Order: sequence, then C-alpha cells, then structure tokens
Amino acid sequence: MSGKATKPPGAAKAAGPAPVGASPSEIVAAAPAGDWATIPPDSLLVMDLAPRAGEDPLAPPPPPRRVVIQLVPPPFTQGWVNNIRLLAASHWWDGAAIVRAQDNYVVQWGDPEAENPALARPLPAGLQKMAEEDYVAGAPGDCGRYAEVCPDAALRFFTSAEIHDSYADHAGFVSGWPVAVEGRRIWPVHCYGTVGVGRDVAPDTGTGAELYAVIGQAPRQLDRNIAVVGRVIEGIENLSALPRGTGDLGFYLTPGERTGILSIRLGSEVPDLPGYAYLSSVSDSFKRYVHARANRRDAFYIQPAGAIDVCNVPVPVRRIEPPAEAEKPRKRR
Amino acid sequence: MSGKATKPPGAAKAAGPAPVGASPSEIVAAAPAGDWATIPPDSLLVMDLAPRAGEDPLAPPPPPRRVVIQLVPPPFTQGWVNNIRLLAASHWWDGAAIVRAQDNYVVQWGDPEAENPALARPLPAGLQKMAEEDYVAGAPGDCGRYAEVCPDAALRFFTSAEIHDSYADHAGFVSGWPVAVEGRRIWPVHCYGTVGVGRDVAPDTGTGAELYAVIGQAPRQLDRNIAVVGRVIEGIENLSALPRGTGDLGFYLTPGERTGILSIRLGSEVPDLPGYAYLSSVSDSFKRYVHARANRRDAFYIQPAGAIDVCNVPVPVRRIEPPAEAEKPRKRR
Repeated sequence: MSGKATKPPGAAKAAGPAPVGASPSEIVAAAPAGDWATIPPDSLLVMDLAPRAGEDPLAPPPPPRRVVIQLVPPPFTQGWVNNIRLLAASHWWDGAAIVRAQDNYVVQWGDPEAENPALARPLPAGLQKMAEEDYVAGAPGDCGRYAEVCPDAALRFFTSAEIHDSYADHAGFVSGWPVAVEGRRIWPVHCYGTVGVGRDVAPDTGTGAELYAVIGQAPRQLDRNIAVVGRVIEGIENLSALPRGTGDLGFYLTPGERTGILSIRLGSEVPDLPGYAYLSSVSDSFKRYVHARANRRDAFYIQPAGAIDVCNVPVPVRRIEPPAEAEKPRKRR
Repeated sequence: MSGKATKPPGAAKAAGPAPVGASPSEIVAAAPAGDWATIPPDSLLVMDLAPRAGEDPLAPPPPPRRVVIQLVPPPFTQGWVNNIRLLAASHWWDGAAIVRAQDNYVVQWGDPEAENPALARPLPAGLQKMAEEDYVAGAPGDCGRYAEVCPDAALRFFTSAEIHDSYADHAGFVSGWPVAVEGRRIWPVHCYGTVGVGRDVAPDTGTGAELYAVIGQAPRQLDRNIAVVGRVIEGIENLSALPRGTGDLGFYLTPGERTGILSIRLGSEVPDLPGYAYLSSVSDSFKRYVHARANRRDAFYIQPAGAIDVCNVPVPVRRIEPPAEAEKPRKRR
C-alpha cells in the first residue's frame, strides 16, 4: 500500500539481503523475488475517474485518474467481494460518481440517485445478501472453517511483540492484510486506504454497490461494524486530494461537485494494467521491515519508538513487469 | 480539532446534560459553557493561502483559503512556539509557500529558497536554538519543573482505561492536548492535524520557520524526534486536499505547483477572527465524550470497540461568538 509503486529491483540488480540497521525502504528494495506474492488480476478493481478539467479547453483532455484497489483475500467477507466482482463485470458503476469526501474520514462512491427509486440504476441479478456475522471470520467454535487463520492453528498469521493494538487482543497480518484477533475471531481492520461497503443502519449490511475508501486516521471503530473488502494500492491521491464535500458528512451538495466514474473493472478485464505484488507477510523480509519500522534508525531519527500500530505498517506493494514485455525481445530484432 | 466548527448551543438552547447512551456529538452539543476553555488569540496562528484559481478570469477572485492553528500550550516545546510567535510578528512567512504534500503523511510550508543561500529570506534576529531534550517535558528527576503534568502529581492529566496506546505506557490529555506518558516523561503526540517543526538531520532541531501538518495516519514514530507545536483547528481541508507533490517525499517539482502563502499572523493580529474554545479535557463532558467514542452506540453501530486510540479522540473545538456581538444589542435599537 505504498503510495508510489516502485520498479522491482530485478534479479541482476539484487544486492543480497539488506544490512543490519537498514531502513524500511532498503529492506523492501533488497527483498528477494520469492518474498513477493503476486496479486491475481481478478482480485484487482480498477476505477477510472473523469480527468481533471484542463486549463486549456482546446488541448486534448488529460488521461483518466486511475485508482487501483486490491480486493481482500479469503476467508474475509467473500460474499461482498463476490458481489463487487459481479457489479464490475456488469459495468454497473460506469457513469456513477464520487458522492462524498469527508476530511479525515472517507471518500465514498456509488449511484448518486440511489435514494431515488425513480432514478436509481437497477442492481444486477444474483447479488448475495450478507449477514452481520460475516464482518468477522473464525467465529468461536467455527475454527475448522477458517483453520488457516485461527491464531492457535498452523497458520499464516504474522505478528510480533512490537505490534501493539488499541482495539483488540492482537493485531498482525494474514496474506499481507492487516487484521485484528480476539480468541478465535479475526477480522480485517480499517487503516488508511482501506475500502469498505457503505450500508444503511443495521440490519442492512450493504451490497457492495456503494463503497468508501479511508482517507484519514484509521477509523477502527468501524471494524466488525461494516464489511472491509479491499484497499487502495495505487492512485489513492486521486481520492484523498479531492475537494471535501460541504454537506453533512462530506456529501457533495450539487451534481457539479461530484467526480464522475468512467468505469470500474476487474483487473482481468483491463488490458493495459501492470501486474502487482505485495511483500508476503510471512516472509523474512516482512518481519525485518516491521521491526525496522517500529525501531527507526534512519539518520533522521534520534529516539526509536520500539513499537508500532498495525495501521502504521503499510504493506509494501509494487508493480511487476508484465511477463510479455520482460520476455519478448522487441525492437532490437 | 473537529473538522467543522459549530456554533455554541447558547444558554437559552442548552437542554441540560446529554442522556445516557448519547452519541459523542450529542454530548459535545450539550456540554455546559463552563466545560469549554477559551483559546487565547495569541495562541492562534492564522495562515491565509492564495485563493484557488477561479474558472472565470473576469470574476472577482475567491477569498483566501484560511487555516487556523492552535499553538501547543505550556509546558510543551515553548522555545519553538516563541520562535513561531516572533516569525509571525515579523511577517516572515508572507510570500512563502506550501512546498510539499506527501499523501498519508504531511503538508509542509516555509521558504521555497531555504536551501539556496543567495535567495533564502533572512531569519529574524532573536530566534532561540532549541535542544533535543525539549521534545519531551517532565524528564526524570525534573518533575518539579513540570509538576502540573507529571502523571503522579496533582495534575490535569486525563486518561481512562479505554484509552490504549501502542507507543507509550499511557496516553491521555493535558489542557485539551493529546499526550503520551512514560514514567515522568510526557510529550505531545502526532495525530491527524498536528503541526510540527521541520528540521534537518540531528543535531539540528529546526527553528519553527519550516512547519508541517499531518494529513494521514498518526505518524507516532515522529514523537520525541521532532517538535510538536500546534494543531489545525479549522480549514485543514485547505491543506489535506491539496494536490500531492510528485517529487521525492511529495515536494513540488516546480514553483507553479506550489500554493502561495499570503500571510501568517498570530490570532491577536487578525481583526476578523472569531474566538475559539476547546472542550476541557478535565471536564465531565470530555470524560463522557471519550467513553462514548470508545463505545459507539449510535444507531449505525452494532459492535462497540470498547477501547480507543488517543489519536481517534479529536478534541472538540468550536467557534465562540465575539463578546462584542453577543453583548451589544444592535439593529433592534
């Protein structure tokens, strides 16, 4: 979830493991290829927003503002993720809009006419209706269902004594995702850049048609109250730097203030999309990265904190070269 | 530090204490006048940024974009605050600029030519050079100096069992300010909206001429590494929604990308400034507000967290009517 994707160091340039005392970014840059996990293209959601109005009306318009979202991996909140895949496949969001930007909270998008039955766009058939208990995985007594994430099972849950949590017994990472754990219950948490499902008051749980991204201090009070379905891995500034709405809760008061959505597609439907990978949270590089972030020893720091909040550990994500480009010797022929 | 200042409820409208189970905003709205502490005008810093370019070049320009900052109260980092008062009084920042906007981190301002001795604006005489130990107050064995904030003295430090902290033994509030405590050491912490002093690598500690505001997840790793001198109490969206810089660390690459600073003044020098007050952190209303934020029971919530991070407790700040307007019976005479 680093703001800027960096090019992979490449096998020829890999200089071996980062030295003791390396900075977090040095550790990430030196991570071997095997420590990176590719994100499947159908777990990416690509939102193209209308370009910013150009200063010269006669010049060609600038390109769309692209936001790339990684969908949360299993076992978390998969019903909503299935709905989102269906909505994207049916191009349901095309022509929808960013409807809300509330400072230090969320940017939200969906059908601006959702509240108006005469104008609301019909939802596609086949959306699942989800239950509140699906906000959390690995419920007590249900550990068999989610054995891979139960904290006391043979699991791929990573934590360290340096990751403290104000909101749950433990916090850590599963499949590169920040999570909180209490007993046998585990849930993805709300950090900067997290994408969740807007909903009405309970018992409504939302379909996934209305989504939000966090653009401020981790609103952890939303954990277990709403479905976390993704995180922005590129282009967050196309949401976080939008003008704030001046209505209640940051809703835009007039259609002209909204930013239009040109399209939202699954990554597998976007031909020009690069590949993306995250630093595996069970890799040795990730372990060292967390330790270095909790104990900053870069030249700037004089007092390492010795601890860190789970939302202050952005999981490194990088672009990977599309295999076709890397392998085909072109132009030189 | 609420994003939007609200008008005070007014004596006539005060409906008594908020009921049990009230939401955080209901508790704040019902807080009696005595629970609010006025911020002295010379503890306010008012930054006016150049207006956004209008769409119609013939129309009158929109008003400046105003950012109001509260300076941190004693005993915290007062040397830097003194420097900032001196810089403001000498109008040093007029014509300076926002030089950096890094997503999920900081917006920074100062002299764009600071690194260029031939062009840098000279600093006013009389700036104090501060020591690194002043990042923290109440050092061990020095409790007498800061008796009012030592956690084991008769103090105005407020905390509760619900305020957990990932970075220090305790966290809470002193004079309406979020702070962390270890033993007899106490320091103001970095939350969303916090203003701090830019500096070079140690042993430089910065003068206060270069300032930043946090626009993302609380960068608590900066605590005790840099001077916290204030917080944005109004107009944060004029910083947080700025386009991000595309250079390293979010610096703007060209002068044209920067936002100009028209002026920075102490509040006592700004004639049209309203008064501001914060909800006292030793008031009963604040105690109830923290509890309600840690245990959300508004209609939307189904699962209260039962705990809260100190940076997820924005201290309520409101505008207060200038006494002249409230007391003078005008127009009706």
